Amino acid sequence: MKDTVDAFVEIFELEGASDGPLAGLDFAAKDIFDVAGHVTGCGNPTMAAAATPASAHADPVAALLAAGARLRGKTHTDEIAYSLMGANAHHGTPVNPADPRRVPGGSSSGSVSATAAGLVDIGLGSDTGGSVRMPASFCGIYGMRSSHGAIPMQGTMPLAPSFDTVGWFARDPETLDRVADALGLHPAGQSVTRLLLPVDAWARAAPETVEAVSPALARLEARLGPATPVILAPEGLDTWRETFRVCQAAEVWQAHGAWVERANPAFGPGVADRFRMAAAIEAEEWRRARAGRETVRERMQTLLTGGCALVLPTSPGPAPLREAAEADLDRFRMRALEMLCPAGLAGMPQISLPAGTVDGGPVGLGLVAARGMDRGLIALARDAANRRD
Amino acid sequence: MKDTVDAFVEIFELEGASDGPLAGLDFAAKDIFDVAGHVTGCGNPTMAAAATPASAHADPVAALLAAGARLRGKTHTDEIAYSLMGANAHHGTPVNPADPRRVPGGSSSGSVSATAAGLVDIGLGSDTGGSVRMPASFCGIYGMRSSHGAIPMQGTMPLAPSFDTVGWFARDPETLDRVADALGLHPAGQSVTRLLLPVDAWARAAPETVEAVSPALARLEARLGPATPVILAPEGLDTWRETFRVCQAAEVWQAHGAWVERANPAFGPGVADRFRMAAAIEAEEWRRARAGRETVRERMQTLLTGGCALVLPTSPGPAPLREAAEADLDRFRMRALEMLCPAGLAGMPQISLPAGTVDGGPVGLGLVAARGMDRGLIALARDAANRRD
Repeated sequence: MKDTVDAFVEIFELEGASDGPLAGLDFAAKDIFDVAGHVTGCGNPTMAAAATPASAHADPVAALLAAGARLRGKTHTDEIAYSLMGANAHHGTPVNPADPRRVPGGSSSGSVSATAAGLVDIGLGSDTGGSVRMPASFCGIYGMRSSHGAIPMQGTMPLAPSFDTVGWFARDPETLDRVADALGLHPAGQSVTRLLLPVDAWARAAPETVEAVSPALARLEARLGPATPVILAPEGLDTWRETFRVCQAAEVWQAHGAWVERANPAFGPGVADRFRMAAAIEAEEWRRARAGRETVRERMQTLLTGGCALVLPTSPGPAPLREAAEADLDRFRMRALEMLCPAGLAGMPQISLPAGTVDGGPVGLGLVAARGMDRGLIALARDAANRRD
Repeated sequence: MKDTVDAFVEIFELEGASDGPLAGLDFAAKDIFDVAGHVTGCGNPTMAAAATPASAHADPVAALLAAGARLRGKTHTDEIAYSLMGANAHHGTPVNPADPRRVPGGSSSGSVSATAAGLVDIGLGSDTGGSVRMPASFCGIYGMRSSHGAIPMQGTMPLAPSFDTVGWFARDPETLDRVADALGLHPAGQSVTRLLLPVDAWARAAPETVEAVSPALARLEARLGPATPVILAPEGLDTWRETFRVCQAAEVWQAHGAWVERANPAFGPGVADRFRMAAAIEAEEWRRARAGRETVRERMQTLLTGGCALVLPTSPGPAPLREAAEADLDRFRMRALEMLCPAGLAGMPQISLPAGTVDGGPVGLGLVAARGMDRGLIALARDAANRRD
């Protein structure tokens, strides 16, 4: 395999079980998942240099191998997975195969790039604040963030444990579904029976994005009836985003602060800023944010009962251009986090379906459902894809 | 007739033509429409005291009389029609018959109150920035704002002429339709064939309002298919509101500034503030706002082609309580204007349908269509009302 899209940290071949349900499929794993005998670098050279090769596979890697998939290597990640754009100051930016002028999205940048380019069938990633959903939207493929806690992830670098989930990419929903099987997500469970349209989240998207995802929305509505408008955040989505930022940063510092202080690693500019911010979160601020998170969870649980799913653009727009100015990226990130944080705060699954393009860059349509409804979301995606004209 | 709701400035009876299509229906006219032999007070005692009785009926009054309706009197208005709440510092606040704890809305406050209370069948009003749509929503009845320029209005006090339109209230859409006929709006013309859901305007409404109007939306969607999400204002609805504020104020000052400077009338607090603000609009500010208005018009015309109509809550919430604090009213007004200004800026017709209640107060669902589609909006309202379960 030639890495035509700068997606891989390391290329190798590790055969899976000979007769599993994923036999014949190749996968790549984000370099935050342990692979026995290989270093887990987490996108940061200081961490990679100090690490010894892993002694065992991370749970999701082991599960895919046991199901018969073949591992083709480890893929780039934003440093410590603490970014959404896919630009790593040390390792560069993987190519967005759908529109090479644009970033691929992150932090699961190499996995999305390798999958979208057709180098592998399955990209294994992780999603804390959008690290699978956003790149799936940017690269025009399917991405799945699982319910928090639903998939064992021993052997995976933590970012913010109460938000961290396993996620994966595929070019078709059938493969997405087979991976869900292999990762142990129960196929039974509630179907999506009704769509809710969160107008405050939609209002964060660009007009062209709203237009581009409308046909995909219409296909879902043809199946389930018109989406009912709702307002997600009575407090404002900016408040939810701030709650997410503080909770995430506090947990990131708890997980990595000691290492940062001891090893003083070199970070790229955005990541360095976020770690400084994380170090400064005070106990009282975190306490208030955790209380705010409870309010969000209750609101989301109240809305998403009885088979309801939110439907919304995954991202405010297509991927930013590779040379976008930092200020533009910041504005984009703020809006993106307001659209992505509801599922993260509530620990809910979200799928991103390829839906259209804006100025050549893909945009995805997202569906969020109650915890445990992962397979229901994938089933709906399969159904919608089969109805595509 | 006993004025049980403090709606009337003056009560009298003026018979209409004996055999017209509105025979048997009573109407009341907002005290900005001339009625021959009566003073037009416009809600302000200084103006009323200086006025001589009108020598002829205003066009809409003459039209309703000619169609056989009987005029029962003249109704209260906010001063110079320059307000949305229905509280007149000199004449008091008409009762909101649907929920007497709340204001009735304005500026067509007496006409809505008299119609909602059943004292008359038709309330004649005017709508510059929402003065029919808002009170219709607040009092739980139908309200129609016509296309700008579609209905002759000679003999009517101007507020901001490039925005001023004739509007009317009724308790059922059939009456609304018969009045449209009497006012000369052509019954032919395009039907509404497709709904657009402006997510940025919906996001200005309260969550409970969105929930309360959803069944009415669903009835429309059952007829026309799912509403397609759109973003109205790429610049932000706050920018559109500001464009509206400046254009309106400049025109108000052009129409009334000389009188204000000469007569130095006593105004209630909110109205006084707005006249001071209007006096201070500078030529360059107005020029920029007019240019901004052209952008809005183009955007609205682009969106509303081919039988499309916007569907959105008429107001961010139910009518404020009569004793609401000024700061709360201001916040409400800002959000309301962001939802009401698109039709005003574009000169487009908007209907408000009674849709539900929030904490005992009615909320309406609005439909905005291209200029000239007034009858199409009313036809859709009739159709939806007939399908109501």
